[in-house]
Amino acid sequence: MPAPTHHSTAIPEGLHMPGPRVVLGRGEPLKLDGGGLLGPFPVAYQTYGTLNADRSNAIMVCHALTGDQYLVGPHPVTGKSGWWEEIVGPGKVLDTRRFFVICANVLGGCMGTAGPREIDPLTGRRYGLSFPVITIRDMVRAQALLLDNLGIEQLFCVIGGSMGAMLVLEWAASFPTRVFSAVPIAGAARHSAQNIAFHEVGRQAIMADPDWLDGAYEESGTRPERGLAVARMAAHITYLSEAALHRKFGRTLQDRDRVSYGFGADFQVESYLRHQGSSFVDRFDANSYLYITRAMDYFDLAAEHQGTVWRAFQGTRTRYCVVSFSSDWLFPTRESREVVRALNAAGANVSFVEIQSDKGHDAFLLDEPEFHATLTGFLEGAAELRGFGPGG
Amino acid sequence: MPAPTHHSTAIPEGLHMPGPRVVLGRGEPLKLDGGGLLGPFPVAYQTYGTLNADRSNAIMVCHALTGDQYLVGPHPVTGKSGWWEEIVGPGKVLDTRRFFVICANVLGGCMGTAGPREIDPLTGRRYGLSFPVITIRDMVRAQALLLDNLGIEQLFCVIGGSMGAMLVLEWAASFPTRVFSAVPIAGAARHSAQNIAFHEVGRQAIMADPDWLDGAYEESGTRPERGLAVARMAAHITYLSEAALHRKFGRTLQDRDRVSYGFGADFQVESYLRHQGSSFVDRFDANSYLYITRAMDYFDLAAEHQGTVWRAFQGTRTRYCVVSFSSDWLFPTRESREVVRALNAAGANVSFVEIQSDKGHDAFLLDEPEFHATLTGFLEGAAELRGFGPGG
Repeated sequence: MPAPTHHSTAIPEGLHMPGPRVVLGRGEPLKLDGGGLLGPFPVAYQTYGTLNADRSNAIMVCHALTGDQYLVGPHPVTGKSGWWEEIVGPGKVLDTRRFFVICANVLGGCMGTAGPREIDPLTGRRYGLSFPVITIRDMVRAQALLLDNLGIEQLFCVIGGSMGAMLVLEWAASFPTRVFSAVPIAGAARHSAQNIAFHEVGRQAIMADPDWLDGAYEESGTRPERGLAVARMAAHITYLSEAALHRKFGRTLQDRDRVSYGFGADFQVESYLRHQGSSFVDRFDANSYLYITRAMDYFDLAAEHQGTVWRAFQGTRTRYCVVSFSSDWLFPTRESREVVRALNAAGANVSFVEIQSDKGHDAFLLDEPEFHATLTGFLEGAAELRGFGPGG
Repeated sequence: MPAPTHHSTAIPEGLHMPGPRVVLGRGEPLKLDGGGLLGPFPVAYQTYGTLNADRSNAIMVCHALTGDQYLVGPHPVTGKSGWWEEIVGPGKVLDTRRFFVICANVLGGCMGTAGPREIDPLTGRRYGLSFPVITIRDMVRAQALLLDNLGIEQLFCVIGGSMGAMLVLEWAASFPTRVFSAVPIAGAARHSAQNIAFHEVGRQAIMADPDWLDGAYEESGTRPERGLAVARMAAHITYLSEAALHRKFGRTLQDRDRVSYGFGADFQVESYLRHQGSSFVDRFDANSYLYITRAMDYFDLAAEHQGTVWRAFQGTRTRYCVVSFSSDWLFPTRESREVVRALNAAGANVSFVEIQSDKGHDAFLLDEPEFHATLTGFLEGAAELRGFGPGG
């Protein structure tokens, strides 16, 4: 089988993504939920800290829909902070003096892991829409292969927010012996009708853009930037709370004393949203957005386990800490409670915390002391049980 | 001044909108909040029932963003029911054997009233984006001119939901002696940051469509249908509740046993949403969508009255019935309570009801017995006070 002709993905064109990248599925390709086979395929990842002698201190961080492996900045594309700098680093919640933190770009992503933006090694051409539609379980299987490659049998912890929480739950369900502890944050056991609806709006916005070209835009030197920006704008509203939008912006005008009686960005909230859209297209790929939102829509632990979520965790020995945020309306506390009920029904060791916050879904990315203290407390307890004492 | 060359608007092209239409602002043009003048301009409307001898039984219904004057069907474009057939008709809440019900297409609309789709009588060409940006107060002023034209001094009631509620509040604030009673339903005294954000997404979706052509699409025989459909899809989610989406669709698949591992409408909720988008573009104009959403965004009764809402109602003698729905997250009960507080501060006669419903914002359009009973009770009491007894 020919090796991939491209070993790093460029965003924007010509920029090489820094960091390690392995080619997996060389011997045996990955069997996908959709029935296809994938391999060989690249996975790009980052690690922070040092793996200890008995390989027991590895933490897998699972990123969200538009996240990536760069937990700590500067980000190679944007130059900004990493998306979880609040949490990961020396002395932080995921203390890199103590833990070996791994984060891999998910399957379907656009930061170096196999996805529609990558080159198909079988054809030497970009996948585009010929990339197979993948699931959260496929993403987790690819991460398990990465773990094999790194020579790590068991993760001390798998942790992630939003889509990351879906991967965490799937990790615990699919590889129960490889997960010592699991922290699904602001997640759900399945994607709700309303969330599927919001994703569908985003996909339709992208596919309505004539520059999308049925996914073959890269070949033509175009990109569906307007469609992707609209998709991002719609999604971004769902990541915040009404209270946060009111507190941050209210009806404050942008650089003007009075409304303009026009269609410019009169209000700060409009200007902010436009900025969210336009900056997003510089760092994200439209086809990846289609594939990853689809994987989230398909996620349904019950459907994978004879119609009930608790069967996904039958016999589990993993320790769980389920976290939600009170003002999150995208993945409301109700959905985390359903996960907790299923874990209880499976006899799991589970703690559950709803963090009081008015910051909405994105609170898991922000400076939330109660949230951070919750994670630290859980990890301390788990580390002691796992046999590496407090404070390293 | 030349008369308008076009006296009815066609949607789709060539279809004449049935019903009365008057040309207003002939002598003195309408002064707009944005500083411009409008006139002469057409207003298209419908009436149901008969005006009584002392002209005391007129009810003005104010429609929502994408509503129109056709309260009762068949709708001339879609052939479907009118949008308030649940409420308006013989023996219904707005009993047309008893009341004279008026509904006018708002300024900026696309069903025969002056808007971007109409012909500018001064140039003989379609307005497009040369139509002035208008406000909710401008819409109400135009309706007041219509009332003058109909020879009605005082409305027995002004009633409307969503944007209609904004018009109701503006009617009471701007023309206090012309409004005997007022029923703002699922509304607010000002548009919230989150709602402005959702509107901005819709506008950006329209303006991102290359067929929009800076608003001059009609001249070129195109229409930004894809952009308008995306705008509608995003908005439509906000009109429902999460519970209603879950109850109606959940994760049920559309005409298939299993997911397709593709980007078709696997889920019923996707199919439903796509239908909402594609059917909307057949009956609505993209530029009108821009103008009317903008008018809603600008709505802020406090800003119009030295920074406090209660001043808008100072000295009011109108009787108010404020209604909200418990599952409405677009115009949540909290916002109706703010209106009630302002009315109380102004010493107004006000009753307030939060209807328990899981149907979200759109509950005001649906069969909700408690809602209907609330309206009937309020109107009975008001009619007795106004001097026309129970049951006509």
